[in-house]
Amino acid sequence: MADIPTKPMRQRVEEYINELQDQIVTAFEKLDPNSPPFKRDSWIRAQGGSGRSCVFAAHPGDEAQSIDPHESILEKAGVNISIVHGVLPPAAIKQMRADHTSMPLPDRPEGLPFFAAGISLVVHPRNPHAPTVHANYRYFEITEPEPEDKDDPTSSPKVIAWWFGGGSDLTPSYLYEEDAVHFHSTLKNACDAHGPQLYPAFKKWCDEYFFIPHRSETRGIGGLFLDDLNEGNHQRLRPADEIKRPVTPEEIFAFIQDLGDAFVPSYLPLLTLRHSTPYTPQHRRWQLLRRGRYVEFNLVYDRGTKFGLMTPGARIESILMSLPETARWEYMSDLGSGEGTEEAKLTQVLREPRAWV
Amino acid sequence: MADIPTKPMRQRVEEYINELQDQIVTAFEKLDPNSPPFKRDSWIRAQGGSGRSCVFAAHPGDEAQSIDPHESILEKAGVNISIVHGVLPPAAIKQMRADHTSMPLPDRPEGLPFFAAGISLVVHPRNPHAPTVHANYRYFEITEPEPEDKDDPTSSPKVIAWWFGGGSDLTPSYLYEEDAVHFHSTLKNACDAHGPQLYPAFKKWCDEYFFIPHRSETRGIGGLFLDDLNEGNHQRLRPADEIKRPVTPEEIFAFIQDLGDAFVPSYLPLLTLRHSTPYTPQHRRWQLLRRGRYVEFNLVYDRGTKFGLMTPGARIESILMSLPETARWEYMSDLGSGEGTEEAKLTQVLREPRAWV
Repeated sequence: MADIPTKPMRQRVEEYINELQDQIVTAFEKLDPNSPPFKRDSWIRAQGGSGRSCVFAAHPGDEAQSIDPHESILEKAGVNISIVHGVLPPAAIKQMRADHTSMPLPDRPEGLPFFAAGISLVVHPRNPHAPTVHANYRYFEITEPEPEDKDDPTSSPKVIAWWFGGGSDLTPSYLYEEDAVHFHSTLKNACDAHGPQLYPAFKKWCDEYFFIPHRSETRGIGGLFLDDLNEGNHQRLRPADEIKRPVTPEEIFAFIQDLGDAFVPSYLPLLTLRHSTPYTPQHRRWQLLRRGRYVEFNLVYDRGTKFGLMTPGARIESILMSLPETARWEYMSDLGSGEGTEEAKLTQVLREPRAWV
Repeated sequence: MADIPTKPMRQRVEEYINELQDQIVTAFEKLDPNSPPFKRDSWIRAQGGSGRSCVFAAHPGDEAQSIDPHESILEKAGVNISIVHGVLPPAAIKQMRADHTSMPLPDRPEGLPFFAAGISLVVHPRNPHAPTVHANYRYFEITEPEPEDKDDPTSSPKVIAWWFGGGSDLTPSYLYEEDAVHFHSTLKNACDAHGPQLYPAFKKWCDEYFFIPHRSETRGIGGLFLDDLNEGNHQRLRPADEIKRPVTPEEIFAFIQDLGDAFVPSYLPLLTLRHSTPYTPQHRRWQLLRRGRYVEFNLVYDRGTKFGLMTPGARIESILMSLPETARWEYMSDLGSGEGTEEAKLTQVLREPRAWV
């Protein structure tokens, strides 16, 4: 059976993120069997494509909710996949060229077909000692306007540019150094199998990306951020003939799969360890203040969110799914500024990102 | 004593907003004498200027708080004044020229001195049946680089451009039509004394300004929004020789004072009427979802907030004071979509702004 042609990458990515979504949602549901399951919600995009949202929510004040929401481990979580295609207008191509070196020139007035498949997840646990986590892995293609052989149903349009991107990062309200070390180590191990320069480059990129300028602090304690990974040169990586790195589509897809597979082992042990830590109203209040900062980052700076909000016809519910169930803002809050407090221990590390491994 | 020269406008505005701040804060404190008073907090801006924040907050989980926070009428409120001056760099002048026709060309590399004085307030009551309100009145000047006579302490630098701006708008979670009518009537009366074209023009501008494109709805049920009011032509007003409108600095300042003075009578009766309406957990949940939309507008679209976040050295606590104490986001919320519900009654009017008077 070795002669069967390799499936197109877009199909393999689609299959992988489907499996990964199931694996992740199942892991959360197994951890908390007494809470309601995630709600599965498939959707179709009028302009081309589809997706499936898996969402956890337990609303106070909702009479249909039979469980006490305070007993659920998660407060709000979403694990979404989307597989969309369409035509990118020249203005969008031009804008994307800033971040994607292989993107062709925007010289066709009718634009160029694109394909994008990705998984995106955010988990906000209820307990203030359990960290919030985010992960996202995606594959993007720009193709020739027409398939090479329209009569052959197995033929795919010719790919003229492609890349993988993604990452994962942790946002605790209270700093447990051993949790930060576990999270970073797990991601580092997944990276190191594909070359020694990956973890340092993408860890640094993550600290830079999740920075909130008006607060002079990062959103959380980092992880990985990567984008525009393809066979060409990469602005943050040295060439593969100097230091090993994934280069071919096969190698990069294998790397991305290892990162995706590392999500559950990077995060679930932390949630298992922290979800039943006793907490006070002050702990909860601080957690909600931190979630306010999360909202500030996502609405003001996050590239994907901003792009989504500006895109007519975008699915707002999916874009804003990353926002916490509840967030809080206090004028001149006393929390977080007191020397030597647990709250100040966190803010300090957000002001000066640390090397965890 | 008629020979005493008129005080410069900047000083008169400063005196007025000082009085208005006291008047407004006192009105809220009188309404709820059993809650703690507003916290007064004066600050100095290193680059020039000062301000005073008057803030109400009652934090749950704060042991120093002796009252039960659920008994306070307000949940979070801020009434701030700021009087700042400094130098606008050419880039800022260029950007402001888009909205201010009298702004000079950015042709001096060293920039131009500016002066800005304003009052800004946001009140988020606790009861979901009581509306949130926002108001803001401001005066802006661009002056010649040097005072005309440096040795004369009463001389002011020559003003080369100036304008007044401001407005006030109401954001209910539940629609009481009579409240909307009262609020708009009070503002309309204040406008009509200065010309019949003001209320219609500024009511329309308000509906346009407080629009959230990604939600296809307005932030609230409107009020007034006005900017760039000076003796020159105004893009939204017909000339004064066709239809009466305030033109001179005196006339415009008198108009702005009438609007400022209308704040308490426009809003306090509504708060008095609604603050003790019985409410259910679902009412509260809907109120917090609406506050999520408030956060979305302020962080993503509000000009002042965006400008503030981009300004190095800006006072973040003042800029983000407008955010509610608590906000909420639900994925695909069932609230607000059910035909004929009280929640849907609100969302309908946010999708199709209505003529209230």
